[in-house]
Amino acid sequence: MHADELFKEFRETSITEFFRKNRAHLGYSGRLRSLTTVIHELVTNSLDACEEAGILPEIYIEIKSLGDSHYRVISADNGPGIPVKHIPDVFGKMLAGTKFHRNIQLRGQQGIGVAGVTLFSQTTTGKPIRVRTSTGNGKVNEVELMIDITKNRAEILSNREYSEYWRGTEIGCELKGVKFSLREQGPFEYVRRTAIANPHAKIVFVDPEGRKTIFERSSEKIPKSPVAVKPHPQGIEVDDLLNMAKKTKARKVSSFLISEFSRVSSAKVKEIQERVDFDLNKNPRRLKWSECEQIVKAIREIKFLAPPSEGLVPIGEEQIKNAVLNILDPEFDAVLTRPPKTHSGGVPFQVEVAVAYGGHAGRNVGDGVKFEIMRFANRAPLIFDAGGCAITQAVNSIEWKRYGIRDYENSPFTVFINIVSTHIPYTSAGKQSVAEEKEIIKEIRMALMEVGRKFQTYYSRRRRAEEREQKRQILMKYSIELAAGLAKLANKNEDEILKGLHKLIDKRMLDYITEEVEEGREEKEEAEMDDLFIENSDQ
Amino acid sequence: MHADELFKEFRETSITEFFRKNRAHLGYSGRLRSLTTVIHELVTNSLDACEEAGILPEIYIEIKSLGDSHYRVISADNGPGIPVKHIPDVFGKMLAGTKFHRNIQLRGQQGIGVAGVTLFSQTTTGKPIRVRTSTGNGKVNEVELMIDITKNRAEILSNREYSEYWRGTEIGCELKGVKFSLREQGPFEYVRRTAIANPHAKIVFVDPEGRKTIFERSSEKIPKSPVAVKPHPQGIEVDDLLNMAKKTKARKVSSFLISEFSRVSSAKVKEIQERVDFDLNKNPRRLKWSECEQIVKAIREIKFLAPPSEGLVPIGEEQIKNAVLNILDPEFDAVLTRPPKTHSGGVPFQVEVAVAYGGHAGRNVGDGVKFEIMRFANRAPLIFDAGGCAITQAVNSIEWKRYGIRDYENSPFTVFINIVSTHIPYTSAGKQSVAEEKEIIKEIRMALMEVGRKFQTYYSRRRRAEEREQKRQILMKYSIELAAGLAKLANKNEDEILKGLHKLIDKRMLDYITEEVEEGREEKEEAEMDDLFIENSDQ
Repeated sequence: MHADELFKEFRETSITEFFRKNRAHLGYSGRLRSLTTVIHELVTNSLDACEEAGILPEIYIEIKSLGDSHYRVISADNGPGIPVKHIPDVFGKMLAGTKFHRNIQLRGQQGIGVAGVTLFSQTTTGKPIRVRTSTGNGKVNEVELMIDITKNRAEILSNREYSEYWRGTEIGCELKGVKFSLREQGPFEYVRRTAIANPHAKIVFVDPEGRKTIFERSSEKIPKSPVAVKPHPQGIEVDDLLNMAKKTKARKVSSFLISEFSRVSSAKVKEIQERVDFDLNKNPRRLKWSECEQIVKAIREIKFLAPPSEGLVPIGEEQIKNAVLNILDPEFDAVLTRPPKTHSGGVPFQVEVAVAYGGHAGRNVGDGVKFEIMRFANRAPLIFDAGGCAITQAVNSIEWKRYGIRDYENSPFTVFINIVSTHIPYTSAGKQSVAEEKEIIKEIRMALMEVGRKFQTYYSRRRRAEEREQKRQILMKYSIELAAGLAKLANKNEDEILKGLHKLIDKRMLDYITEEVEEGREEKEEAEMDDLFIENSDQ
Repeated sequence: MHADELFKEFRETSITEFFRKNRAHLGYSGRLRSLTTVIHELVTNSLDACEEAGILPEIYIEIKSLGDSHYRVISADNGPGIPVKHIPDVFGKMLAGTKFHRNIQLRGQQGIGVAGVTLFSQTTTGKPIRVRTSTGNGKVNEVELMIDITKNRAEILSNREYSEYWRGTEIGCELKGVKFSLREQGPFEYVRRTAIANPHAKIVFVDPEGRKTIFERSSEKIPKSPVAVKPHPQGIEVDDLLNMAKKTKARKVSSFLISEFSRVSSAKVKEIQERVDFDLNKNPRRLKWSECEQIVKAIREIKFLAPPSEGLVPIGEEQIKNAVLNILDPEFDAVLTRPPKTHSGGVPFQVEVAVAYGGHAGRNVGDGVKFEIMRFANRAPLIFDAGGCAITQAVNSIEWKRYGIRDYENSPFTVFINIVSTHIPYTSAGKQSVAEEKEIIKEIRMALMEVGRKFQTYYSRRRRAEEREQKRQILMKYSIELAAGLAKLANKNEDEILKGLHKLIDKRMLDYITEEVEEGREEKEEAEMDDLFIENSDQ
């Protein structure tokens, strides 16, 4: 067949058409997962909106059964609302939104998710989604819309405006080919984990049986609002630099670098100037690829301060501790927030880790309890695709037995990990798995090893205290008999002999403790081998 | 912060910009994987083009090192070439192509891949890709182009046209931040596996050290060209049906169904008519959602012939056998092509499986040999993301020890699986992992169990033959001594006694074989338990 013939079918596709045919990329595969994905998109959107607006979130989620595999989902929040002119694009257009362009930590980052809900709803039921929203200006809009798939834009079916003083967003949609379940990967568990990672949010969840669960907020503190931060120079690639240089208002490359990047001072510009063969007073719009390459190379040779942490909003050790204690009531827990680092060159990120042992920690499987990993990215639970995720890989790469946990897979152990970043490198548009960036894996490992050592100290101390107490009890028991015997033999006072024996026992116990401290030191050294491993594998 | 303030940043993103920021979705993560992804996109495009045009493919791939993490890749094929007016869109626009809209089995299906190469090349090196192509009409075009990212369209830097009689396409691009390696996930192994699954292709591969490997074709037979097939009714969803009904030229729903679907006859239409409450003589453009829903429901209650197999092009048992024998030289092999089935409602697909034992089968790891899974989709190797793939899940769900393979993970065993379909349900745009659709998993399991039983028969027969021969040798050895003794004792002819003894031994051996046959029957029944398992787990 000739090429002209073959190319007769050449056509362009819209992004909406693409995702309509490749739903699985957005997380719409399987009946349970599809429903959880809808809840995920609605909840993260509400949380993001509240957080940016500085509002303590109150979220309502209701799932109603309408028949076999047929449900209605209603979500409502007390967020800032959506200005009426943006309603069509927010819900009816993919790759449109407030998040993609900004270097800001939010759960959503792509401008696909919530339009994905509209798409899934209409392609499974033929019905529009209903949006009711107000920014609190006394006017409420109720809009019904679908997506015009070939054009990737909203088709408004109705728009009713009326007066009412209320603020927030309410979404109603119907779904077919989905299924509710209380299983680990279902909507309830998704919401429960969201509540754990967002102790400032109140979430009401009503399941299809009409059971209402209220996740009360355990903290009244509004998390600081995430702010868009300038990119860190060490995260920049040549292509990014060139693009930014074309758009800048600065007149010189030097002022461009200082004004559009974080941590670039005039002293740093001087250091860069020493390493490049052209004048940094040049107009940035005239920069060539090779010159940008020189700048990027220079930047990688120079030390910069770590990215500013105001761009990152971790949950915080105290909040995590409360949440973990609250829910798992463990025998032992340790929480750690690592300092901010950069991945993929220069995107700031930060890792938070908690481990809990005993109590309700671990995952209940049949009669037994198994090791459990709870993954979060920007406080949103990651429920699916655990296999290919950097978090899973990092956790499984730890030699837990070094920290005194013999059969870790069958221990009542929960590891909680949250990665916060202005750009989480997800492996696909479904956002359930973090790409295996080595810096991220390294940070998680570092954090786990640190809490692992704390666990080890606790656990071996507990074990030894138990052993010591056993020994002491045995010795004490026999000391009385022994004292009586010795008293007769030596014809001395029995009480005095007993006192002497007890002194001996106490001394022996002290010796034990000293020995243990020595041993502990050795074990600690052994555990630090892990650090070495990391350094060597980091290339 | 007020909503109006928050929405000041509302913006639209192009698909190219989206993938520029989320490279990992296309498979561009890590230095080795990024290079393999480029080779993958170029090779699959060449193979698809040749196959559609009915040309025996000759493909040339060269990777040159230009410095640290900096390479030049050249690919060339003898394919049909690209008509000049389509060059910009093929290489410079995402979601454009000949494949997305058609129900046809090709390696590419999204219209993203090769523009992804342009994007990756220009964002890492700032350079255009160079394309030289001709449809064989005496004119050759040499074009240099980049993508205008904000507009998702090609920016042509140069276009030189000259006269020459030649046909094919040659692509040259530079890449940075990538790395060549001979490892399992590198370009060489990718090409080697491509050669295994495409025995009709000749592929020349030149690595950065200048080593040239020629994968000669082991078959001169051009595979039949894939043809676009009409969708099978049982794969259709309400939304699809409604969309098709809006675009059809048919005047009645009945003729619409007959002309635009495969396996729908007027008898079937009659069956549908009996199940719906409106007249199928209606104009299809006037169909309502609820009416389409009735049609889809009716279709699911009716039996249809399996999807026509002319839409599917398996490699074929003979070709796979040749390839496997050629490369692995195994002690045992079994090949199986299952009949076509449908997934996700009605997309036709077919599974091909081969197992090889002994010889060069298995994966060499250090000193040992491990179980190896070679995954393919539409003859393209799947090298990454094995963890979340339906193929891996299906293979690992088999209880190999039932088939006589004790420690399967450490056996010299290669399992080769190819899924062919007009639409492979990949989990992400990187196309390295197949979504876990239950019909696909079931088919793979069925195929593996069938070849597993063949292996079992071979293996237990071999084991028994060995045991039998050992026994026979022992008996024969003693029969001579025994005959001499008996001859003396009974005063009879030694030779005759020996003959009698040998007869006895032969009879005993026959008994063994009969017993084994009985045993074999039992084992077979046990293995069939697996089938039961499948039936039960299939809901």
